[in-house]
Amino acid sequence: MTDPLETLKTSIQTLAESKKYVTLRDILSTMNAADIASLFEDNMPEEIIPLLYRLLPKELAADTFVEMDPETQQLLIKGFSDNELKEVVDELYVDDAVDLVEEMPANVVKRILSQADAEKRRMINTILKYPEDSAGSIMTTEFVELRPHMTVEDAILHIRRSGINKETINNCYVSSKDRKLMGVVTIRRLILAEPEETMEELMEDNIISVNTMEDQETVAQQFSKYNLIAMPVVDGENRLVGIVTVDDVLDVLEEEVTEDIEKMAAIVPSEKPYFRQSIFDLWKSRIPWLLLLMISATFTGIIITGFEESLAKFVVLTAYIPMLMDTGGNSGSQASVTIIRGISLNEIEFKDIFRVMWKEIRVALMCGATLAVCNFAKLLLFDRLTILVALTICLTLVVTVFIAKLVGCTLPLIAYRLGFDPAVMASPFITTIVDAISLLVYFQFATRLLGL
Amino acid sequence: MTDPLETLKTSIQTLAESKKYVTLRDILSTMNAADIASLFEDNMPEEIIPLLYRLLPKELAADTFVEMDPETQQLLIKGFSDNELKEVVDELYVDDAVDLVEEMPANVVKRILSQADAEKRRMINTILKYPEDSAGSIMTTEFVELRPHMTVEDAILHIRRSGINKETINNCYVSSKDRKLMGVVTIRRLILAEPEETMEELMEDNIISVNTMEDQETVAQQFSKYNLIAMPVVDGENRLVGIVTVDDVLDVLEEEVTEDIEKMAAIVPSEKPYFRQSIFDLWKSRIPWLLLLMISATFTGIIITGFEESLAKFVVLTAYIPMLMDTGGNSGSQASVTIIRGISLNEIEFKDIFRVMWKEIRVALMCGATLAVCNFAKLLLFDRLTILVALTICLTLVVTVFIAKLVGCTLPLIAYRLGFDPAVMASPFITTIVDAISLLVYFQFATRLLGL
Repeated sequence: MTDPLETLKTSIQTLAESKKYVTLRDILSTMNAADIASLFEDNMPEEIIPLLYRLLPKELAADTFVEMDPETQQLLIKGFSDNELKEVVDELYVDDAVDLVEEMPANVVKRILSQADAEKRRMINTILKYPEDSAGSIMTTEFVELRPHMTVEDAILHIRRSGINKETINNCYVSSKDRKLMGVVTIRRLILAEPEETMEELMEDNIISVNTMEDQETVAQQFSKYNLIAMPVVDGENRLVGIVTVDDVLDVLEEEVTEDIEKMAAIVPSEKPYFRQSIFDLWKSRIPWLLLLMISATFTGIIITGFEESLAKFVVLTAYIPMLMDTGGNSGSQASVTIIRGISLNEIEFKDIFRVMWKEIRVALMCGATLAVCNFAKLLLFDRLTILVALTICLTLVVTVFIAKLVGCTLPLIAYRLGFDPAVMASPFITTIVDAISLLVYFQFATRLLGL
Repeated sequence: MTDPLETLKTSIQTLAESKKYVTLRDILSTMNAADIASLFEDNMPEEIIPLLYRLLPKELAADTFVEMDPETQQLLIKGFSDNELKEVVDELYVDDAVDLVEEMPANVVKRILSQADAEKRRMINTILKYPEDSAGSIMTTEFVELRPHMTVEDAILHIRRSGINKETINNCYVSSKDRKLMGVVTIRRLILAEPEETMEELMEDNIISVNTMEDQETVAQQFSKYNLIAMPVVDGENRLVGIVTVDDVLDVLEEEVTEDIEKMAAIVPSEKPYFRQSIFDLWKSRIPWLLLLMISATFTGIIITGFEESLAKFVVLTAYIPMLMDTGGNSGSQASVTIIRGISLNEIEFKDIFRVMWKEIRVALMCGATLAVCNFAKLLLFDRLTILVALTICLTLVVTVFIAKLVGCTLPLIAYRLGFDPAVMASPFITTIVDAISLLVYFQFATRLLGL
């Protein structure tokens, strides 16, 4: 299986070494910005990258620049003349320019801003002042703004004159003189309308907008709930300040999901992709929870120590501790992960807590019973335990699964209600709690049934 | 904190009971389809729903219908006259009609198809024949198709004449006479171009398309990689058969992420939201892995039984088994979840396996060392163990973390290479393996250091 990207990379390197620039230019011009960026980042020798980049047609070059990772961008900027840098910055959309500025070290940022024209610099600074992960920070300030009295003809003229630089003109926004958002006109509607109709007549005024300070995750949820491709962003006085487009929402969704998954696995989230995290970064994001959970596991140790003498009499019981704990952990994480995902998809709310508990209780009893019956048969037939010992283990199993599911489904909802991130209440956390409880139950049953 | 939706629901119910239909119609007309649908689904009494639905303006009614869950849709259809059903079906976009047909029981499907006109029925059937989760199954066959020789004026006329029914006209596709895909023209380009320019001159021919049989997850990845809002779908001969739009991709992403998260938590994925799954559904999706993992935990039992006599001599060692196992499980799942997510974001590939291992080995040693040092202090100072016992526990800890991270990072990559879903190689699976290994290591150290 040869990787086509690998083949392409080799040919391009060979061509670059033998200075076949015309051929290279021809090849690269047929490619997509995203593909060229992947090509550059995939272990391409550092000295070839600026050379190849300079072969790209101007617009493609800017698009490719946006797609590259910060390391490669910095490498290129280092080699740029001021003029070359200005060319790139001029081609960048404002929101992409902001992303760039956020990733670069201070001295590079200074160079970039000095090359941007005054208007762009102002727009970049506007977006930069919004808190990270807010709607304001992911919006662009380049969009088409129309006035209610404009006719279709006026609007098209306006778009033609100004629209060529706007990131998306699929949705045009209508605002009053004091910039209050009034409605939206899709380009589709414009093209299908008669030339003399006005924006006021055409626009949809039942419009979904978002405040600059709204969390980006909420913005993304609105996009998927209302099937949007763009959404206007307004300030506290309902003045139109920018728009968020669906391509940025896709990135937000990816980022937020990764964050949730990391939290569920007891990792402190990082925004960098795996290979861009140093081993120290990885250590820093993993050690806090490992330490905390290790210390919490002290409780299980204390419980076992408390029953040390009884265990010494019935050593066989020790052999089933891992099975009980793992089953408890798995049962609990099934419930908690289901609920956490339901919360983040807005399918489950805090007010559903009793409905959820009632459901989980019944599922827990069914799962517990199934596992206990299978295990009971195995303990008697294969492990040849006495009925009483097998009963101790299987009763503990049922109770453990029951408690695990109950803890697993309630903790995320309670965390959510208290304003914490429910994702933290996933497998590792639940396991630690369920471990302790199931051991207590185990020893209780053992004391009663086996007379320890 | 009163929920505004709750308040609105109460007023609407009261208005419905006092038969204030004009007021109701006015309120509902100002609302979004998605919001009306949530309102209907949120415990609204069943008899009121059809009544309210009939108050909606025709187009809003169809939009609302699409947003509702299958139960509510079925409830409405049951009460529809053939005429009313026809009105809804006529307003539905083809891809939404397909979704509806897929969710309804056979007798309802028959009624729906009999009310669709011949053209729509043909289109529905075309899409239905593609396998679930393929690009073909999520595409729509309603799109604007242009010919290369058309001028901008022709194109706009063509769109005006036919486009009003098309789900999206933001991207128009140019195809040859035998329907081979040639290029794409955005509506933005059309509106900015001169009337006499031809499609051939305007179109972007470096076009990203997808085959009907391609997996929907791949399609979604392309959207986010290339920042698309629509993508043409072609058959084996590169003939244009449909388009996928970004709103459907958002749904696909949500679905695929939920599936991955469920797999990571040892749940057999289900497509239904939580509250639409019966307790039997939930049991069915949770019990297989619980059973399998319970049986695998037998190994840990066997290992402990093998060292039963030694354990009886040094009962204190038992108290630290849960801590060692949990820390191993958590360390392993941190690594595996990171790698699984990296694979699904296309950041990590199989060829990176040695790079990943080298990184994880170093992180594992750093984490292991940190944990061991903290634990050693705690064991000596608080638990008052002897140095040799504390050493046994802490050395095991280092080795366990090391093995957990190594197993955690390699198994998902190997699964991926072999064509299995890496998501299955997450926490529960890794925990079971690491449990057994860490116990073996524990008893080895105990034998050597404590002379058991």
